[in-house]
Amino acid sequence: MSPLRILGVDVLDIRFPTSDERDGSDAMHADPDYSAAYVVLRTNVDGLEGHGLTFTLGRGNELCVAAARSLSTLVVGRTLDSITRDFAGFWRALTSESQMRWVGPEKGVIHLATAALVNAVWDLYAKANRKPLWKLIVDLTPEEFVAAIDFRYITDALSRDEALAILRANQETKHERERELLARGYPAYTTSAGWLGYPDEKIRRLCRQGVADGWNHFKIKVGADLADDLRRAAIVRAEIGPTRKLMFDANQRWDVAEAIANMRALARFEPWWIEEPTSPDDVLGHAAIAAAIAPIGVATGEQCQNRVIFKQFLQARAIHFCQVDACRLGGVNEVLAVMLMAKKFGVPVCPHAGGVGLCEYVNHLVMIDYTCISASFDDRVAEYVSHLHEHFENPSIVRHGRYLPPTAPGYGITMKPAALERFAYPDGPAWAERRASAARS
Amino acid sequence: MSPLRILGVDVLDIRFPTSDERDGSDAMHADPDYSAAYVVLRTNVDGLEGHGLTFTLGRGNELCVAAARSLSTLVVGRTLDSITRDFAGFWRALTSESQMRWVGPEKGVIHLATAALVNAVWDLYAKANRKPLWKLIVDLTPEEFVAAIDFRYITDALSRDEALAILRANQETKHERERELLARGYPAYTTSAGWLGYPDEKIRRLCRQGVADGWNHFKIKVGADLADDLRRAAIVRAEIGPTRKLMFDANQRWDVAEAIANMRALARFEPWWIEEPTSPDDVLGHAAIAAAIAPIGVATGEQCQNRVIFKQFLQARAIHFCQVDACRLGGVNEVLAVMLMAKKFGVPVCPHAGGVGLCEYVNHLVMIDYTCISASFDDRVAEYVSHLHEHFENPSIVRHGRYLPPTAPGYGITMKPAALERFAYPDGPAWAERRASAARS
Repeated sequence: MSPLRILGVDVLDIRFPTSDERDGSDAMHADPDYSAAYVVLRTNVDGLEGHGLTFTLGRGNELCVAAARSLSTLVVGRTLDSITRDFAGFWRALTSESQMRWVGPEKGVIHLATAALVNAVWDLYAKANRKPLWKLIVDLTPEEFVAAIDFRYITDALSRDEALAILRANQETKHERERELLARGYPAYTTSAGWLGYPDEKIRRLCRQGVADGWNHFKIKVGADLADDLRRAAIVRAEIGPTRKLMFDANQRWDVAEAIANMRALARFEPWWIEEPTSPDDVLGHAAIAAAIAPIGVATGEQCQNRVIFKQFLQARAIHFCQVDACRLGGVNEVLAVMLMAKKFGVPVCPHAGGVGLCEYVNHLVMIDYTCISASFDDRVAEYVSHLHEHFENPSIVRHGRYLPPTAPGYGITMKPAALERFAYPDGPAWAERRASAARS
Repeated sequence: MSPLRILGVDVLDIRFPTSDERDGSDAMHADPDYSAAYVVLRTNVDGLEGHGLTFTLGRGNELCVAAARSLSTLVVGRTLDSITRDFAGFWRALTSESQMRWVGPEKGVIHLATAALVNAVWDLYAKANRKPLWKLIVDLTPEEFVAAIDFRYITDALSRDEALAILRANQETKHERERELLARGYPAYTTSAGWLGYPDEKIRRLCRQGVADGWNHFKIKVGADLADDLRRAAIVRAEIGPTRKLMFDANQRWDVAEAIANMRALARFEPWWIEEPTSPDDVLGHAAIAAAIAPIGVATGEQCQNRVIFKQFLQARAIHFCQVDACRLGGVNEVLAVMLMAKKFGVPVCPHAGGVGLCEYVNHLVMIDYTCISASFDDRVAEYVSHLHEHFENPSIVRHGRYLPPTAPGYGITMKPAALERFAYPDGPAWAERRASAARS
């Protein structure tokens, strides 16, 4: 039997018109149309494909699509085995392509596209092994696990030997934790109530619903206007009571001094963390904010471009919560590196999710983190937002505020064919109908 | 007379097959084809256009072209006056577009494309005023100058008032320095001798030629192999003698500990600086290297993605030379911000150049820095590489190791129509001939 080989790569521009409802609105992104540069790896085995996506907000998605197509030349023709045998080498080849790296390196459009491709390869790898991605990785030996990681630029924070030591220490007990997860799931939190564009009554209703559904952590958007933030924070704190955790997310709206001043004003609502208080590139700024507003924690990561910036956030003690993003980082390989660094520095990983597909990804990542790396639930919650799950073949499932371990083979990101057709941009029916409706009104 | 208005934006994919000669080869970029995403702003005034480009290494240029097209919707239809009246606001509108910022923000493909557009606007502004760009800016009042700068995320390092104070202190004497530049030019250094791919005899010959031409600073590439670096450094030091300055450029090849160890081995050649010793994102890594290898200076910037990272390099005392890049940063506006921050922190600006068009840009930037900001030549040299100047209408001119102030209106980046036609990718004659030649051999 001939080896499993990637024969071609299709990249689709998929967009959902979410801005119609202001779902996902925040202080910097008023009108997101949740979108995906969606990669399909076609193979020589009937019915076996690798699917991966990178998430964007609409305009600009075409750039990630184009970048994934440009990078796909490095994937087409490869056997799966030749990739997974030296996964770190494959990842380096993509991120260090001698001409393309100039337009990154390892950041922005090209890195988002890298994530879609890399995650599609992992999806294929897991499907070929008939395991959910998290289980595939949990079953790796520590040596196989670290062989997927490119340690370039992080050896001053985490050596290969240190990574191995973390994994080996958890090796004997990892299947106990796997059973625990299968029984209980992984703690999650909800952002569904907190979007900026929602009227107060909708916030109240969503908070009550969240409490009734068993949520213990609630996050709201802040940053556009302090008076508005104070009013909405008061509503949410009143609805969720004094003991549940309340988190704020400023989506990079503030400068350093502004973040400190505004968080002092908002401190009365006893927030657990402030997320993205300022530029995602500003390690030293976050460190200054963290020092000034303790004991409120600082969180960031959804726009943290790569492991080098995360390394510095950890080294500088600038964050208390590490919000890795499954496709802002360059796919599974780089996420594993960051989760290992976070463990070494004692910082809990609380992955970013929402958007489209991020919850499906995250569901796998937290299972890996708990079984192999952190071995702890302390201060750990994964984001959950209730949008757009209906378009996936195997959507993430949350019950009573906990993610349930995925059971289907793959990385969980495969969308239904009907969704891929309906939301194809710009010519899918959803967009054609929207244009026709706009023309009528 | 109707106001000057931008009616349309053309974006061209221009590539030069420089990899044939291994010009520009370094430890990370073995085979660059110097390229440009080239922007033309068409206006309602006959013969008046704004030209701008962003520089890339070949593959990936198509992504910058696509990004410039996507962003151009924010430019088309605008009057020049509506832009320049609130230049910081215009810049913020481009860099913070509510959907597109997700695929940056302010980094990588989207920011490189921003630079091409923003620089094209400045070119149009200068041409409309019949002044070289540097002269247009030197003639601004301090208030007009800072009105071009978006201070978001840098106010903890440089406030608008501090920027004004720097400019005002230089205001009275700036025209003296302008006359001095017109008479003497601005100090430059050459990288032409130092590419990794050159044989030793070519290095020797180019060094001798450089000394004969009046150069006092020589830079060579290092990082691929320490033994090779030691051999080539010995050749260059022997050729240029003990008093001329020798600089090394590792193009991000090393991890932190590796950079320190290798620079200790190379210290015997008394380098003035080590450029890009590690990841361009690693502020704390550069700070660690700088502390370990003093008095050798640390330099970086050509891949420093934006003012937020530069701010931290300066705050952390991680660099001794600030190598701004005219189109890695988001165009003139952001370069002005970084040059002002560098002044405040006492770090000399030594702009990155080479590639295609960078020397043409840099020639203007150093004139602005000297007249309005730094008011000093101390430890300041601008890079110069002798490639591809023949394709520009008004190429940068260097005499006896000094850049001469440009005299033609605009930002100097307008290419000759014949070059735009010949090197259009993939269908221009240069590429068609190359393919035909490859097919024959």
